[in-house]
Amino acid sequence: MKKLEERILRDGRAIGNDILKVDSFLNHQLDVVLIDEIGEEIARLFAGCGANKVMTVEASGIPPAVAAARALGGIPVIFAKKAAPSTMVDGAYEAPVKSFTKGTVSSIRLSKSYLGKGDKVLIVDDFLAAGEAGMGMLSLIEQAGAECVGFAAVIEKQYQGGSERLRAKGVDVKSLAVISRIEDGKVYFAG
Amino acid sequence: MKKLEERILRDGRAIGNDILKVDSFLNHQLDVVLIDEIGEEIARLFAGCGANKVMTVEASGIPPAVAAARALGGIPVIFAKKAAPSTMVDGAYEAPVKSFTKGTVSSIRLSKSYLGKGDKVLIVDDFLAAGEAGMGMLSLIEQAGAECVGFAAVIEKQYQGGSERLRAKGVDVKSLAVISRIEDGKVYFAG
Repeated sequence: MKKLEERILRDGRAIGNDILKVDSFLNHQLDVVLIDEIGEEIARLFAGCGANKVMTVEASGIPPAVAAARALGGIPVIFAKKAAPSTMVDGAYEAPVKSFTKGTVSSIRLSKSYLGKGDKVLIVDDFLAAGEAGMGMLSLIEQAGAECVGFAAVIEKQYQGGSERLRAKGVDVKSLAVISRIEDGKVYFAG
Repeated sequence: MKKLEERILRDGRAIGNDILKVDSFLNHQLDVVLIDEIGEEIARLFAGCGANKVMTVEASGIPPAVAAARALGGIPVIFAKKAAPSTMVDGAYEAPVKSFTKGTVSSIRLSKSYLGKGDKVLIVDDFLAAGEAGMGMLSLIEQAGAECVGFAAVIEKQYQGGSERLRAKGVDVKSLAVISRIEDGKVYFAG
């Protein structure tokens, strides 16, 4: 997505050889107009995928997930939670997610009420790096006996291998901006 | 908002004399069509408020905040974070938020890059109960030298006193559904 790549180059801040900060428009301050366009592009890429639900994980996955669900005709979004809320009384699917930056393992959870057999799920997330959150969400979908019909990442850091891991599990991964490397604070896109 | 009240009565689950679960459409699974309508109603209630930013706190405040910002002409959303991300390098405003259900005090944070003097902020949140999150966001706005032009709550639990606390600070509070009490699993709206 040309416009997104241009925005990353203009307003993103690459630090060292790994970190890309996009919190001026994607995950702390939100450009809601751009996020609508991101949703439309995801819907275009996954037209005909048959999804009846969009899944993401809180918090910064929520805006692009909602935008995609609107553009896909107003299907529901379900978002996995990182904390165990006292109100999730009906039982939950749970999966571990490793954080490479923090060196910790946490859990993501989804109430069993909102996902089950017959559901076709499109996963949407703001970042795809090592694929840990993606593998976690895939596990939630498998536990529910539902089907993953695709994975849409707004920004993929290709060099961290997440898309490869997900594709090896048979997932149709499509990313709006694919970063092949970050070097000395400069971003390089694939292709 | 009639449609929201009807949805709360149909799909909400009131537990005892205090808890209202709306996670089938508002804060775990999301009805994106209803949330769009919520955004339009907030924009109608605060038309002419002069807001140039919408503020909320992660995670479940984000969907109505984004919907309101779109309906207000596509102004940016800023969402306060509950954890201290390693990437918030430019300094942050910080405020304590007490949780009555958990009995704990945590912090919310907003990067100093995205709020300052001259900003006019409309706060949007999914719930207004005791007003702790609202008072915290108000503190972030005051620290930035910005102005709060209003507070829109999707669901207000009036009996917990949050709207009174915020109004005592001069905030223009408007809620789309105002619950006067919950009794034996039954919801009563004000007025």
